[in-house]
Order: sequence, then structure tokens, then C-alpha cells
Amino acid sequence: MNTFPTISSIENNDLRQQLQQIIGLKTKPLGALGRLESLGLQLGLIQGTTTPHIDQPQIRVFAADHGLAQHGTSAFPSAVTAQMVLNFLHGGAAINVLARQHNIELKVVDAGVATDFDSSYFKGNPQLLDYKVRHGSRDALNEPAMTDEECTLALNNGMKVAQELTGNLLIVGEMGIGNTSAASLLLARLGDLPIAECIGRGTGLDDAGLQHKEQVLTQVLERHSAATTPFAALAALGGLEIATMVGALIQAASDKLILLIDGFIASIALLVAEHLAPGVKQYAIFAHHSVEPGHTHLLQLLDAEPLLDMQMRLGEGSGAALAYPLLQSACAIINEMASFNDAGVSEKSSSENNN
Amino acid sequence: MNTFPTISSIENNDLRQQLQQIIGLKTKPLGALGRLESLGLQLGLIQGTTTPHIDQPQIRVFAADHGLAQHGTSAFPSAVTAQMVLNFLHGGAAINVLARQHNIELKVVDAGVATDFDSSYFKGNPQLLDYKVRHGSRDALNEPAMTDEECTLALNNGMKVAQELTGNLLIVGEMGIGNTSAASLLLARLGDLPIAECIGRGTGLDDAGLQHKEQVLTQVLERHSAATTPFAALAALGGLEIATMVGALIQAASDKLILLIDGFIASIALLVAEHLAPGVKQYAIFAHHSVEPGHTHLLQLLDAEPLLDMQMRLGEGSGAALAYPLLQSACAIINEMASFNDAGVSEKSSSENNN
Repeated sequence: MNTFPTISSIENNDLRQQLQQIIGLKTKPLGALGRLESLGLQLGLIQGTTTPHIDQPQIRVFAADHGLAQHGTSAFPSAVTAQMVLNFLHGGAAINVLARQHNIELKVVDAGVATDFDSSYFKGNPQLLDYKVRHGSRDALNEPAMTDEECTLALNNGMKVAQELTGNLLIVGEMGIGNTSAASLLLARLGDLPIAECIGRGTGLDDAGLQHKEQVLTQVLERHSAATTPFAALAALGGLEIATMVGALIQAASDKLILLIDGFIASIALLVAEHLAPGVKQYAIFAHHSVEPGHTHLLQLLDAEPLLDMQMRLGEGSGAALAYPLLQSACAIINEMASFNDAGVSEKSSSENNN
Repeated sequence: MNTFPTISSIENNDLRQQLQQIIGLKTKPLGALGRLESLGLQLGLIQGTTTPHIDQPQIRVFAADHGLAQHGTSAFPSAVTAQMVLNFLHGGAAINVLARQHNIELKVVDAGVATDFDSSYFKGNPQLLDYKVRHGSRDALNEPAMTDEECTLALNNGMKVAQELTGNLLIVGEMGIGNTSAASLLLARLGDLPIAECIGRGTGLDDAGLQHKEQVLTQVLERHSAATTPFAALAALGGLEIATMVGALIQAASDKLILLIDGFIASIALLVAEHLAPGVKQYAIFAHHSVEPGHTHLLQLLDAEPLLDMQMRLGEGSGAALAYPLLQSACAIINEMASFNDAGVSEKSSSENNN
């Protein structure tokens, strides 16, 4: 079992008051920029500054396969995980398009894809980081998805991925056929929720597929009823990409990076990270509300209000990339807007009805 | 009374099917990009192409004063309208910051500010467009806010503003102390709603101020009970910046521009535009849900689902500027993402539970 780095508190009353004053004196009615103001405040607190800024933002897409997927818990075959890794490396996936739009650097972390990427094309490809623990997680119907050692290795790998980051903002995306199942299992266990409320159609199951998924996941939970600690639950029910994401989030929070959290899978990684290293959540901005039904419960558990609700369910970090310019806006408002004094604009009149 | 240009229908079944097919074959589960997909579809239909793109986006901030504001319907004094115009020209307002972030060109339209901008600083300032009809609208408690001639002139001015546009996307923003009152009056009249459900705190009225606003607006509606046609209502209850915005939206829709609609005031201008020139709404993308309570009713009337809900109530076009990158993303997804075929990715398996 790992020891994790310390997570500093972002709370700082003096700085909070300074930021509130700066935002309050901008040439706009008090509070009129709504969540953009609270977002700017949080970014300032995370960075410990009255002039928050985003520098060299990074996306890491964590990819792995799931042993459980052989039981038909996903609408797509496992082969798609590796095919999508190829698509990421060729720049053709949604997350590539959004990362290019916003100048976010994207790399793919092979946390445990079943396929080997050993052709000459991949050797030395700087966009592909080899942190493969094994060829897909184990079949959680029969044994823990990861042994303790494998889970620890994946967590450590994630911490290494974060240590190697440049910049001050991290988006963790993922690709793993079957990973909504792993996320649903973790949510049911750590949130003490009925599995039926934690599952959804993932990439597109039909009604029969959804029913089958519920049956399989119910059996998995029974099989691992003793896995109740966050680490044991992660090992038994999670996945290699999820465990690697957890490590990355913990290390990045310890390094005071902004964590821009995508949808269902990224949020479950954050929940596990918060259990293992309390305080990580302070560094998190929740980007969007996924249509995967479990995400609603998960956001409640995390006391999170995401920025966007675009009815998306793609993963890859796509919702986070979409929300990214809102963070840039929040910084720019603090750094660039004129104050009432600067601009010679009258503040709200004290006697509202007499003029 | 004006005659307005024809608004073309954006509907085109062949093109719709082509766009749906292109989006459906992208390397993602069907529908997984949610509203980004429907947004891309609408942009393609507006532009009549399978490769929608945004070119030289424009913001016009329409500014004017309101005669009614002398009755204390706003938390800020009327002088702030001109002060904020100065702030826009100096680049210090929220909309300047957001426009710079997204490379959107911003100009200010003086549609009827009470102050003259005749110093050497303003003469020839290419960012300030002089379409002043008069020094503020008339006091709607005593007479129509605009005579028919003034309202027609403002509408025509707005059409001229749109005719002079470069690019293919227009954001109409506004600045006018007292203009939430005018918007609430128009909503109550055109939506046949009780005024109490159409008003809010605007820039920040307290409870007594809000009650006073309701009393004043009730009297205004009684005074102009005969102003029931869209044009008569606009003239009696509206404002110079609103009427100019209406003209701009009609002309821009006729020219097949994308109309990115901001909050409460921009939405009321769109409602009036749709009444005067049916079809304008097809060109509209609704950017955000304002906290101004009337906006909820207005969005229902317009059958609109805005992209963002950031709890904002600033105006200026700020909510629209914030949503703008989502439109860029929608275009980029259509133009740049790989299809299943391109990328060699397997489509969803036909028999979901057998692999």
C-alpha cells in the first residue's frame, strides 16, 4: 500500500479577501459574472495568488482494457481501446480536435491496454507514455481486477506521470472499453449506493445490454464484498487506467496543479483520490455533467457543481477540454478588467430610488 | 412602419441527412457528444454546408439611456451608461476581456446615449458607431419610449449596422441603465405575462427597489395598454438600444449570419425580431441562461435551451462571448474528427452481449 504525498490546504483567509475585493471592484454589478467569479476565486486560491493564470495546460488520456468486458458489459468490443489509442496518436479523435483548438498538450498513457504498441510507429513516439502494468485488468468476476501489487504499481505510475508534467493544469481523460462498469462498481461500493442507480448505457448499450450489465456487476460486488477500504475497492473493482489516474490526481494536487475534471470516469478517480489523500478535491474544477446516470450521484458525493451540461458521454477528457476556456476567462477577468476607480465609473447609488 | 428583408428557411432535408451522417460516422459512440452534435448540425444548416466554420466573429454593444430610469428603476444612475461606453472604448470592461480572449471584434453602437461623445477622443474612433436617435428614450410613464418615427429610425439603424458587418457571426450585446425594465415590459406585453414574473433586480436592486420597479412598470403597462402589436409595443415600452438590436438581428438573419444570443435583453430583442420578421430565430444560438428571472419565461417563449448556465446577469454580450468557443468546437468536430473508416476503429458490435 502506498504512502501518498501531503495535500496542502488552499484556504487562506487573507488571500480570499484580497481576491474577493479585486473581483468586487471590477466594473460590473456585484456578483454579475456569477460562477466566473467563484471560479476565479478558486483558481487564485489554488495558485496562492491574486493573479491566477494558466500555463502550458496538459491532457493525459489514460488507456487500459478491462477483464470484465469479456462478459459483454460494453456495447463496443475491447479491440476498440487500442484502435482509439491509435486514433489519438494520429490526431483524429474528439479530444485531439478540442486539444488543438485550445492549445492543450495531449499525451496518451498506456496504463494497461491489452494490445502491445511495439511497431516502429510507436517506438519512441513521444505522445505515447508506456506505463502498462499488464495486458488489461483481471476478470473481476473471478478475482480482484488488480492484485495489491498491480494496483500499487498503477498508482505509482500515475504519480510519475504527474511528476513529469510541465504547466499548471491537468486534465485526465480516459479510454477503456468497459470502464463505465468499473466506475459504477466503485461508486456503488464507496458511495454505498444500489448498483442499479450507478449504471448506465456507457457507449451505447440497449435495454437488454443494460440489464445484463446490472446482473454482472451485482455478481462482481458480491464476489468482492470484503473490499471495502478505498484501496481494496480500487484493486478489486477498478481498472488500470482508473488507478493510474488516481495516482496522477494525487500527485498533481500535491504539486498544486489545477485539476480540470471530466465526466464519470475522471470523477470516480477523483473520489478515490480524495479518499486516499484527503484534500485533493480542493484542486478540482468540475467541467461537465455527463449523461451517464451515476455521474449525478457522484457529483453529489463530491459536493460538485460542474460548469457545463452538454449532454455528453464520451470521456477522453472531452468535457474538460470544452470547459477549459471558461477557466481562461475567469483568469482574464481578474487580471485584465478595469476597476470602478480605473475606469471612472460610478458605483451603485446608495439611495436607489432617488435618482 | 418598416418593411423587413425576407428570412430564408434554414431547413434542407438533404443537407440535414448529410450532416447527420457525417457526425454519426465520427469515431465516438453515436450521440456521445450530445449538444455539440446538435449545435454543429444547426451551424451547418445555417450556413448551408457540410463544413460549417466561423469567420471574423463580431460583437456590437448597443448603448442607450432610458427616460424611465429617472423613476429609480435601476440600482445604478443613468450616467453609468456613458461611463461604460468609455470603459468599452478603453478596453476595460468584461466584454472587452472576453472579446480579446476569443479574437472577436468589438464595436460600440451609440443608439441613444444621453451623453454626447464629441470630444476629440471620440471623433473618428472606429470602435464607436454613431447611430444616436436621441439623447435617451422618452419617459414611458408619460409617453411612448419612442415615437413611431424614432422606433423606425432605430430599426433601420440596426439594419445598417448589420449590413456593414464583416464575418459570419454576430453577438449583440448591450449597455443601458434601465434596460431590464424595458425588456420586462416587452416580455409582459408580448408574452402576456404578469409583470411580477417578468422583473428582477437588474444590476442589483434591493427588495424595496424591486417593489418600486414593479409599481412603476405596472403603471407603464396601463399607460400603454393599447400598444399590443410588436411594433407598437417596441415603440411604447422598449428602448433605443433594443430597437436597434432588433433591426440588426433581422438584417443579420436575412444575411444568414449566425446569431449568438446573450441574456435577457438580447433575447427580448430576438423575440421582437421574430415577431416582426418570422424565421429570425432559426439563426439563433442561445448562449446562456441569465439569472434575471424573466429570462426563464422568455426562453420558454422562444423554445430555447441555452448552452451555459453560469449564474450571470451582466449583459454586454458577456454570456455570448463565453459560449463562443463551444461553437468553434462544434465546427471543428465536424471538420477535423476522423470517421470510423478513416481511423480503422470498429463500430458498435451488433450483438452486444456475446463478446
